Amino acid sequence: MPVIDLNCDLGESFGAYKMGLDEEVLLYVTSANIACGFHGGDPMVMEQTVALCKKYGVRAGAHPGFPDLAGFGRRNMSLTPSEVKTSVMYQIGALDAFCRGAGIRLCHVKPHGALYNMAAKDYELAKAICQAIKEVDDSLVLLALSNSEMLRAAKDTGVSAASEVFADRAYERDGSLVPRSRRGAVIEDEELALKRVIRMAKEGVVEAIDGSTISIDADSVCVHGDGRKALEFVKRIREGFLEAGIEVKGF
Amino acid sequence: MPVIDLNCDLGESFGAYKMGLDEEVLLYVTSANIACGFHGGDPMVMEQTVALCKKYGVRAGAHPGFPDLAGFGRRNMSLTPSEVKTSVMYQIGALDAFCRGAGIRLCHVKPHGALYNMAAKDYELAKAICQAIKEVDDSLVLLALSNSEMLRAAKDTGVSAASEVFADRAYERDGSLVPRSRRGAVIEDEELALKRVIRMAKEGVVEAIDGSTISIDADSVCVHGDGRKALEFVKRIREGFLEAGIEVKGF
Amino acid sequence: MPVIDLNCDLGESFGAYKMGLDEEVLLYVTSANIACGFHGGDPMVMEQTVALCKKYGVRAGAHPGFPDLAGFGRRNMSLTPSEVKTSVMYQIGALDAFCRGAGIRLCHVKPHGALYNMAAKDYELAKAICQAIKEVDDSLVLLALSNSEMLRAAKDTGVSAASEVFADRAYERDGSLVPRSRRGAVIEDEELALKRVIRMAKEGVVEAIDGSTISIDADSVCVHGDGRKALEFVKRIREGFLEAGIEVKGF
Amino acid sequence: MPVIDLNCDLGESFGAYKMGLDEEVLLYVTSANIACGFHGGDPMVMEQTVALCKKYGVRAGAHPGFPDLAGFGRRNMSLTPSEVKTSVMYQIGALDAFCRGAGIRLCHVKPHGALYNMAAKDYELAKAICQAIKEVDDSLVLLALSNSEMLRAAKDTGVSAASEVFADRAYERDGSLVPRSRRGAVIEDEELALKRVIRMAKEGVVEAIDGSTISIDADSVCVHGDGRKALEFVKRIREGFLEAGIEVKGF
Repeated sequence: MPVIDLNCDLGESFGAYKMGLDEEVLLYVTSANIACGFHGGDPMVMEQTVALCKKYGVRAGAHPGFPDLAGFGRRNMSLTPSEVKTSVMYQIGALDAFCRGAGIRLCHVKPHGALYNMAAKDYELAKAICQAIKEVDDSLVLLALSNSEMLRAAKDTGVSAASEVFADRAYERDGSLVPRSRRGAVIEDEELALKRVIRMAKEGVVEAIDGSTISIDADSVCVHGDGRKALEFVKRIREGFLEAGIEVKGF
Repeated sequence: MPVIDLNCDLGESFGAYKMGLDEEVLLYVTSANIACGFHGGDPMVMEQTVALCKKYGVRAGAHPGFPDLAGFGRRNMSLTPSEVKTSVMYQIGALDAFCRGAGIRLCHVKPHGALYNMAAKDYELAKAICQAIKEVDDSLVLLALSNSEMLRAAKDTGVSAASEVFADRAYERDGSLVPRSRRGAVIEDEELALKRVIRMAKEGVVEAIDGSTISIDADSVCVHGDGRKALEFVKRIREGFLEAGIEVKGF
Repeated sequence: MPVIDLNCDLGESFGAYKMGLDEEVLLYVTSANIACGFHGGDPMVMEQTVALCKKYGVRAGAHPGFPDLAGFGRRNMSLTPSEVKTSVMYQIGALDAFCRGAGIRLCHVKPHGALYNMAAKDYELAKAICQAIKEVDDSLVLLALSNSEMLRAAKDTGVSAASEVFADRAYERDGSLVPRSRRGAVIEDEELALKRVIRMAKEGVVEAIDGSTISIDADSVCVHGDGRKALEFVKRIREGFLEAGIEVKGF
Repeated sequence: MPVIDLNCDLGESFGAYKMGLDEEVLLYVTSANIACGFHGGDPMVMEQTVALCKKYGVRAGAHPGFPDLAGFGRRNMSLTPSEVKTSVMYQIGALDAFCRGAGIRLCHVKPHGALYNMAAKDYELAKAICQAIKEVDDSLVLLALSNSEMLRAAKDTGVSAASEVFADRAYERDGSLVPRSRRGAVIEDEELALKRVIRMAKEGVVEAIDGSTISIDADSVCVHGDGRKALEFVKRIREGFLEAGIEVKGF
């Protein structure tokens, strides 16, 4: 039976600022990527989010980002590999403190936003993230874009990795994501998106934007909990997997 | 043979801003309280400071402060006990990541600045700090002001603690520090300061500002590395201890 | 005909974090207190909020707070009077840049959260705020709690001031607000709240919590736009004033 | 008689962190670029720095940077032109508040670090900076790299501009700076550096790295006050100008 993980970014509230339907989406996902205070999240939110992961039996992961709260970690920043490595170590350690407090295990690391996108294409940054993982806890799994430099760096450095796919994004022939600025980058039709991701899970392939069929590792699908509509799609995707005979389970 | 620890706050540089003669003072102290990024310090500095502790065989401790870089953590802030607990957990975890990376053990926690001063007198804040320690790693030792609410809370919550004294500060009859705003609060005469701290270490007593002799636990003396003059005094205090037959050693 | 101003805090969103129904509440108020980036707000939000004030003909004011985004400026901080003065100058200047850009006049300054509450009782902080106003632009009006140290300091320093009242808060016999922690501090009954504020505007008195009638200057009423319910009350209060023959107009 | 301005970045201290020999360097320069709290500086430092400019009769300018204190504004960040425009407006306004308080005029704007470098090559960012100036105060002069997109955007938008040159940097044939990573990018020989900048001021030309002679507008020379050695060179350059019959005077 094919198996897939559903992951979601959460714990992104900050102080008086609320973001995301965290408790609702935790009913449906199997892995949570928890913000660590740099692009979002704060110590109070981190503790509460880890407690929710424990309550719902969802795997807790660190979601480190650039030190850019004003830009929500979505703006490219030219950090050196050393700065990236130490920033990721810092954030993993900070989140792990709450996992230890709650008596659960920190399971994985998924970089956030611009850090994720930059490291997907920049081997040096990708390696810096892997080294951070190795130095802090080499049992942590890197959750990263399929076919990316992050997965290549994980392999090279001996870090365990899980390959992330997107239901609602188009792929280039080389397996990279079609940039959002390009026409057709986002799959608007939800049923088509669902079909695509089911095929990825069952057959390990997806149709690229040029019509060719390419292979893709689908260990985990990224879903969103930032609104009622997003939440509905998470439910739909979970049902769709069950109907298609795919087990939804943490990697 | 009486034993005492010498501790110093360090790793307080931030980005392009340099502070403290960290590498020099590490030659003389036995415990280092390392800033964790809230009042000072950043991931790069934390990694370097932990590496220096390893190099010089100095015990590494977390030095958590209020989230107030502009005020260097020296301004009182009215955080709730939960906010204090989670902020301290966050900072301990972040520093521990670098200790794990360096393969050394995180040994202790000493609150910084206004957090230290407030928790010395506020049992609820003190307890929040102790709970942070218990939740993250109950083998960590709390390093805190002699006769303070922090030590009382540590005892009540079962957290190991070490009692910190100051060579250059006058004490009230009740064992608290004479506020800096009061005349006579700071002992300017270095030889007198040295004599006082030697007496604390050997006899467990100090002369209070009213002339009475009070008992004081001197597990560790706080020294400073923020200038040439401070550094000279650290050397002098270390020599003074040796001459007085007191062993300088981590608690 | 009695006249009163309706003021509301807004522009408190930050980056990806949204807060408040700014555009809706601007239809009903006459003065806007715009966050300046310390406790909330950012340059993009400030520009947009000033543009909205221009669009709706609402008077723009600066809403300076403590440098504590994580605590939304609601946590007491022990800044020196000089730190308060310069922080307020900085924030006034920053907001004024956007008023100049939009071609509208910055009209007033209302301190936010913990800074407001502390300065209401601390004459030195109150004077620091007044000095900030005098130094940057002495035509700015300080909007501050009725009967507070802020109004006293404004008088002493020659700064124009407007006295702010709260419809939903109980008052002590001395004119100060009953602390929220006390029973009866908040008037839950909206119609009663409305009646009270109408009486303040028309007669210049209010019934204190001990049953006595005290005098109160009601130049402006503070209203909220942070939710549908709050917004409904703003509409109700505005209608109530019109029905009672009170003109709603900027101070 | 040829005229040139000497400008220096200062006011870059932050809270407890000290940086630069501001008061010493102010004896020799004619324009000061004052940090505005994003990459360095804080409200207390800004007030003090403006007061020093007034004391020494040095022209005060805003030195806006990216919101990246940890990286001292030296790391590239992908802000949108709108984010750049509003960030620059915010910082200009904030500094202007202190100029108003001191009763001096804010004279110019020189972007800092990565913002300067990026805007030198990116016309859209350059234009965003010029628009910020126009919106806040169109009498402000943009101080920017000779031959850069910033000067081109200033011309296009009708913003007054002054052309900045560097004594210790090599130039490409097209008038751009040789990147620091390239051999020969920095002129180590101080007398050579001085000769080059004197020639720029008198003849309006400089020898490029390929040996060709190129024209260059030298309205202002950038000098540094971040150490004793830097300070000595400022004195030397000032003397050199006087000996060469060049008047040192604000643009």
